[in-house]
Amino acid sequence: MRLDATAQGVYPIAVTPFHPDGRVDTASVDRMTDFYVGCGATGLTILGIMGEAPKLDMEEALGITKQVVNRTKVPVIVGVSAPGFAAMRSLARSAMDLGAAGVMIAPPPSLRTDDQITTYYAQAVEAIGTDIPFVIQDYPLTLTVVMTPKVIRQIVQDHASCVMLKHEDWPGLEKISTLRGFQKDGSMKPISILCGNGGLFLDFEMERGADGAMTGYAFPDMLVDVVRLQLDGKRDTAHDLFDAHLPLIRYEQQQGVGLAVRKYVLQKRGAIASDTQRKPGPVLSAKAKTEVDYLLSRIARTDQRAKL
Amino acid sequence: MRLDATAQGVYPIAVTPFHPDGRVDTASVDRMTDFYVGCGATGLTILGIMGEAPKLDMEEALGITKQVVNRTKVPVIVGVSAPGFAAMRSLARSAMDLGAAGVMIAPPPSLRTDDQITTYYAQAVEAIGTDIPFVIQDYPLTLTVVMTPKVIRQIVQDHASCVMLKHEDWPGLEKISTLRGFQKDGSMKPISILCGNGGLFLDFEMERGADGAMTGYAFPDMLVDVVRLQLDGKRDTAHDLFDAHLPLIRYEQQQGVGLAVRKYVLQKRGAIASDTQRKPGPVLSAKAKTEVDYLLSRIARTDQRAKL
Amino acid sequence: MRLDATAQGVYPIAVTPFHPDGRVDTASVDRMTDFYVGCGATGLTILGIMGEAPKLDMEEALGITKQVVNRTKVPVIVGVSAPGFAAMRSLARSAMDLGAAGVMIAPPPSLRTDDQITTYYAQAVEAIGTDIPFVIQDYPLTLTVVMTPKVIRQIVQDHASCVMLKHEDWPGLEKISTLRGFQKDGSMKPISILCGNGGLFLDFEMERGADGAMTGYAFPDMLVDVVRLQLDGKRDTAHDLFDAHLPLIRYEQQQGVGLAVRKYVLQKRGAIASDTQRKPGPVLSAKAKTEVDYLLSRIARTDQRAKL
Amino acid sequence: MRLDATAQGVYPIAVTPFHPDGRVDTASVDRMTDFYVGCGATGLTILGIMGEAPKLDMEEALGITKQVVNRTKVPVIVGVSAPGFAAMRSLARSAMDLGAAGVMIAPPPSLRTDDQITTYYAQAVEAIGTDIPFVIQDYPLTLTVVMTPKVIRQIVQDHASCVMLKHEDWPGLEKISTLRGFQKDGSMKPISILCGNGGLFLDFEMERGADGAMTGYAFPDMLVDVVRLQLDGKRDTAHDLFDAHLPLIRYEQQQGVGLAVRKYVLQKRGAIASDTQRKPGPVLSAKAKTEVDYLLSRIARTDQRAKL
Repeated sequence: MRLDATAQGVYPIAVTPFHPDGRVDTASVDRMTDFYVGCGATGLTILGIMGEAPKLDMEEALGITKQVVNRTKVPVIVGVSAPGFAAMRSLARSAMDLGAAGVMIAPPPSLRTDDQITTYYAQAVEAIGTDIPFVIQDYPLTLTVVMTPKVIRQIVQDHASCVMLKHEDWPGLEKISTLRGFQKDGSMKPISILCGNGGLFLDFEMERGADGAMTGYAFPDMLVDVVRLQLDGKRDTAHDLFDAHLPLIRYEQQQGVGLAVRKYVLQKRGAIASDTQRKPGPVLSAKAKTEVDYLLSRIARTDQRAKL
Repeated sequence: MRLDATAQGVYPIAVTPFHPDGRVDTASVDRMTDFYVGCGATGLTILGIMGEAPKLDMEEALGITKQVVNRTKVPVIVGVSAPGFAAMRSLARSAMDLGAAGVMIAPPPSLRTDDQITTYYAQAVEAIGTDIPFVIQDYPLTLTVVMTPKVIRQIVQDHASCVMLKHEDWPGLEKISTLRGFQKDGSMKPISILCGNGGLFLDFEMERGADGAMTGYAFPDMLVDVVRLQLDGKRDTAHDLFDAHLPLIRYEQQQGVGLAVRKYVLQKRGAIASDTQRKPGPVLSAKAKTEVDYLLSRIARTDQRAKL
Repeated sequence: MRLDATAQGVYPIAVTPFHPDGRVDTASVDRMTDFYVGCGATGLTILGIMGEAPKLDMEEALGITKQVVNRTKVPVIVGVSAPGFAAMRSLARSAMDLGAAGVMIAPPPSLRTDDQITTYYAQAVEAIGTDIPFVIQDYPLTLTVVMTPKVIRQIVQDHASCVMLKHEDWPGLEKISTLRGFQKDGSMKPISILCGNGGLFLDFEMERGADGAMTGYAFPDMLVDVVRLQLDGKRDTAHDLFDAHLPLIRYEQQQGVGLAVRKYVLQKRGAIASDTQRKPGPVLSAKAKTEVDYLLSRIARTDQRAKL
Repeated sequence: MRLDATAQGVYPIAVTPFHPDGRVDTASVDRMTDFYVGCGATGLTILGIMGEAPKLDMEEALGITKQVVNRTKVPVIVGVSAPGFAAMRSLARSAMDLGAAGVMIAPPPSLRTDDQITTYYAQAVEAIGTDIPFVIQDYPLTLTVVMTPKVIRQIVQDHASCVMLKHEDWPGLEKISTLRGFQKDGSMKPISILCGNGGLFLDFEMERGADGAMTGYAFPDMLVDVVRLQLDGKRDTAHDLFDAHLPLIRYEQQQGVGLAVRKYVLQKRGAIASDTQRKPGPVLSAKAKTEVDYLLSRIARTDQRAKL
């Protein structure tokens, strides 16, 4: 199954589970895959920044890809951002051979001008091959690369294999409106837009025309519900559910700490055996854990899934 | 009245009101000052980044300072960050002569090492004089300068006139705990810690030992209540109130857009006559305004102050 | 006299002379002005980054402008880069009223995309007025803003008052060739291109089509000679002279230290009374001074002007 | 042979030779190795930034390491900077098993505070093992990480396996003096200091106490001579030779273009068969090639080695 521009729903950014000693926890890879799919995920994204991909060596990265792809029938997107095109190509081709549905490419932080960005994507496509569907990751807060809607349109139009935008510009609501306007006026072919940023703006992103979420919030089942409710036009109900989780979503937004919170909650939910991160990575203090527990107890007043 | 380390409560970061043609709206300066004080603010901060200070010329900056200081009896902190020490000194001395309670100094983005940061503050104090109480602004997300707790302690200990930290590191909860630990173990003299970041983490920051908020959220009265409730130990009630506002606080966190939202709401609340920003500054789209209105209507279900 | 696109020769970036106690040394302002003009400068640039402009307050900045403009008949360009348009307008209008020939505007470091850059210059021109000739400062190494030749062309074409490029991109030789190509193919109106970067590439920049230099190297008389020799087609002689100075030009390229070296040599040459910099600014170590002296003695073997 | 703190002389940063179609040119790997050693190199550094290391995949990187180590008896340092510790460990252990003398580690651009930097090196040493001699790469211009002399001393003192500093801070002369002062006052154990920055300051760096050069300038034989002359106290002769090359060294300093120049000259000297770079990489224009040729012809007036 190849990724295409009709993709919608929720593609969780999967964490990479480790044993307390730092080895990849392969048993938890299966468990986590089942958990995400059980939550209603329509796809999965692995080896993203939040998946600690840069901390894996190539063999580990391919091992996880193989295992996840074999475990599930939903499409799997593999993050292939790399310091050079040789490594990117090598990872992308291997991932597709293993059964991935597409790849995701983030721009390197050195890019500044519009031309540099479009040239980079052209070279990346040349490197991986025009037959692999790919996702643009637009994440200026972390990557420091700013892509205007026009630049994104250029990349989409230049490459038939560009089928999706992982949208995590911030602020980004107007960007979604502008891109959907490009589609409407015929200047850009349709693409799928899935939103990141930990889900922090998902409520309104859906109203602006997004197709769903691609993020790692520890309650993907809630994201699934919000996406469905918004697509069904149940605005108030969608916001009520979303707002109940917002205090925790917000807590996860603390850069660095975010992943620690996420793994802590996923462990509590039974999705992974240990919340271990590979170094370098912050450890959640005892105080912080009680704060997360408090937030969970508050969510649990209206959402049973948070009763842990 | 001089600012000292016992300061607590809420010091709103005041916006600067402009007429639609870009001139400073002096009538609104008074109205806004009264509004903030009426909301229960224990102090005021003017000429901050959110106050569009860099867009004012020196004459305008001093005019606003004079007007605000004369209008209110609460202590007024004046932002004096400047590209050079001559301008900083000139603004700081003038502001104090006009009756300001203290000044706030942000580090320039070029600083990297611990020594560079402590040296910069030493030179700043030498420039403005040791008799002016000052606030350290710790805002890495925007300023790109990262201060460890040890560096902050060094500055506090080196300068008797350092009385307050405007805390807006992100994540920053552990930093508050560490700094309060320094006070407890006697290695740092007491300082006031007021929190920024639009109030996004104020609920927990108070629990970590903060003294209050210094931020521009358009409902300073809500911040005042949350601070008081937390100081009174009414944790759940504090979170309930805070959580009702969180969707809007979060919406304001969209960089650039944030100030536009803030001025739009302040105008609706009657605190200023126009939500005009000086260029360069984003304009709120019609769609965005309906989103803010929707958020206000949802807050108004539990907090009458949002019924606008 | 208004600056226009026919400007050529050498516009030294003037230092700002201070007394050892940090006050502006007005006597040296005259001496320095005479020195530069005596060296064959065809114009002067004041209040640049190297002129410690950010360390001056507005009154001092205007005082120096008035004094230099009154002292000389060559055109004077005034740096008006400022954190906001109100201060930029105020400084630009005042400088022109005092008799300046034009102003120079550097982009703020926050700009990233092509559109952000052209919009910024449009807003700056709107702020200062379309009647003031201006220079684009293209200095990515320090300002982190990258302007493609296409972006520069856009600014030049959008604004009749844009008459000059201060070129200090690095590497930048191809950029000069590209811009001159734009003029040749008729897609860009003629502009003057003066080169910065301490003169480090002036030898080849002239061969690529530059009109001269705008930089602060302490031997502007040498720059004048190199420009003239290149314009006269005396390539080898130009390089011989340039290469004799290159070891010192290179030594000045040490960021931060550069200005200290420059002021030290200018003091030795009698252009200013003291090599004092305002804080923050590095002090030249005794060892460094002996290194500069050694370099001067080596230059003096072929260029008597370095016999100090 | 293990790298230790007594290393001196010249360790060229080896380029990676490619065929015009982008494949690694293994024949040229041998030729290049012989060339460097024939130039008098006392060691070699491979897989550095200038060696296009990020553009290689792991298999290629290890293949080149194996080939170079087998070809020469001089110590080979392998760059092992990687986005994560798993890949760093894997590359470092493999390189040492293949016979490398030590590894070089650059800090990732995200590091800011003193503590972050020392912690990073502690985690890196934990990852690769304490038995592998390593080099600190101090290169703020490209990496944006600023290490004070005190931070470097801390790393040196914390790790017995830290034996060398690749010094390419800029300006950096005082840093060498300060570090040698630390050794003299007994607060830091001796380390080898080899200088980078394309050799731009090598003349004076040797006088400040450096042990030699680690850089990729296309005339390593000249660097070898300058180092020897300075160690022999022949200051003027050293500067004469250095200054003759300075115009080309300076030309190579154009970021991005630098490597293209270097490979072009190395090809002319017969060290590699093709000057191809992998994408993304700038191509030298015809005009630029004539400029380099001109510079070579001028060097050749006093140094026969440049007669190509």
